[in-house]
Amino acid sequence: MYYPEPISKLVDSFTKLPGIGPKTAVRLAFFVLSMEEDDVLEFGKALVNAKRELTHCSNCGHITDKDPCNICTDPNRDNTLICVVQDPKDVIAMEKMKDFQGRYHVLNGAISPMDGIGPEDINVTSLIERLKDEEVEELILATNPTVEGEATAMYISRLVRPSGIRTTRIAHGLPVGGDLEYADEVTLSKAMEGRRDL
Amino acid sequence: MYYPEPISKLVDSFTKLPGIGPKTAVRLAFFVLSMEEDDVLEFGKALVNAKRELTHCSNCGHITDKDPCNICTDPNRDNTLICVVQDPKDVIAMEKMKDFQGRYHVLNGAISPMDGIGPEDINVTSLIERLKDEEVEELILATNPTVEGEATAMYISRLVRPSGIRTTRIAHGLPVGGDLEYADEVTLSKAMEGRRDL
Repeated sequence: MYYPEPISKLVDSFTKLPGIGPKTAVRLAFFVLSMEEDDVLEFGKALVNAKRELTHCSNCGHITDKDPCNICTDPNRDNTLICVVQDPKDVIAMEKMKDFQGRYHVLNGAISPMDGIGPEDINVTSLIERLKDEEVEELILATNPTVEGEATAMYISRLVRPSGIRTTRIAHGLPVGGDLEYADEVTLSKAMEGRRDL
Repeated sequence: MYYPEPISKLVDSFTKLPGIGPKTAVRLAFFVLSMEEDDVLEFGKALVNAKRELTHCSNCGHITDKDPCNICTDPNRDNTLICVVQDPKDVIAMEKMKDFQGRYHVLNGAISPMDGIGPEDINVTSLIERLKDEEVEELILATNPTVEGEATAMYISRLVRPSGIRTTRIAHGLPVGGDLEYADEVTLSKAMEGRRDL
């Protein structure tokens, strides 16, 4: 035990964070000692509050400090469009785009039989409920372009089909600013497949 | 404001840490949400405690949760040797070596006229006091091999000279595992200068 206990406890806590190894943890812990006391108190409070005050919106599953969330209660949003994403971070990515004016549904996961995650483990029952109640016209499936994301999109589209609601999948292809030369075969094949008339 | 307030506050706090940019801060904040509540509480407590419970040892200047520190009160340590370092982290580096059985004196800084840090800003008066009281025979100056560290070592050695206590400076040279080819000129010249008979 080289460090006084309060430091080694803080180092241990930092080490639990992803991408922070023992050396960085020590550097951060010593930095905390040099911070203003107010900033440290605020940091401690922010940690506990983030954990305690945040829940998932009972309507859309997005992370929020009030239930239902801001997006669900926003009267200016289009009730006819629901964009289904895997993760609260995906909602934020979509919101940064500033282009989408519909509502969201966050699955908080994706179907992955390898990890033992089935349809009942993701937030899909409440999606079906929403589709019954609301005047939804289109369901945009914006799960990740991975095996799990594709499987989840496929599952939901089949589930929704009987209701007659239009389900769409976001496009796969070359990212803007990307380079054909460095694109992988699957992306390239998806880009060819999804080609459109000019 | 894309994030609920508790998250954006936590992101702000993480961003204040060195080497953590906005993207990493968001990743860490979301990771905190997925942590066990106990771990988060402990993290928060560790932050506040580290800031509140730690002080500098009134004897040696090392960082500690009890005053005087463990090293100063350890009866098995050699009172005749004091190793002077710039920073508490340097004490820990020395302790990891497990070779040094003397005591330490932490300056908590180095003389740097460029940054307006003079001899009165570092923990040197208490060092002189310790030299008067204790049965010290040798003072090892282990400040960093930088301009500031050298200046500090030089200053202390001149200050101590009248007392007749032996002052030594740790060796400069090639680090073990280093490569002559990649050594800078100053290090190489120091290594030549400090050569010893075999």
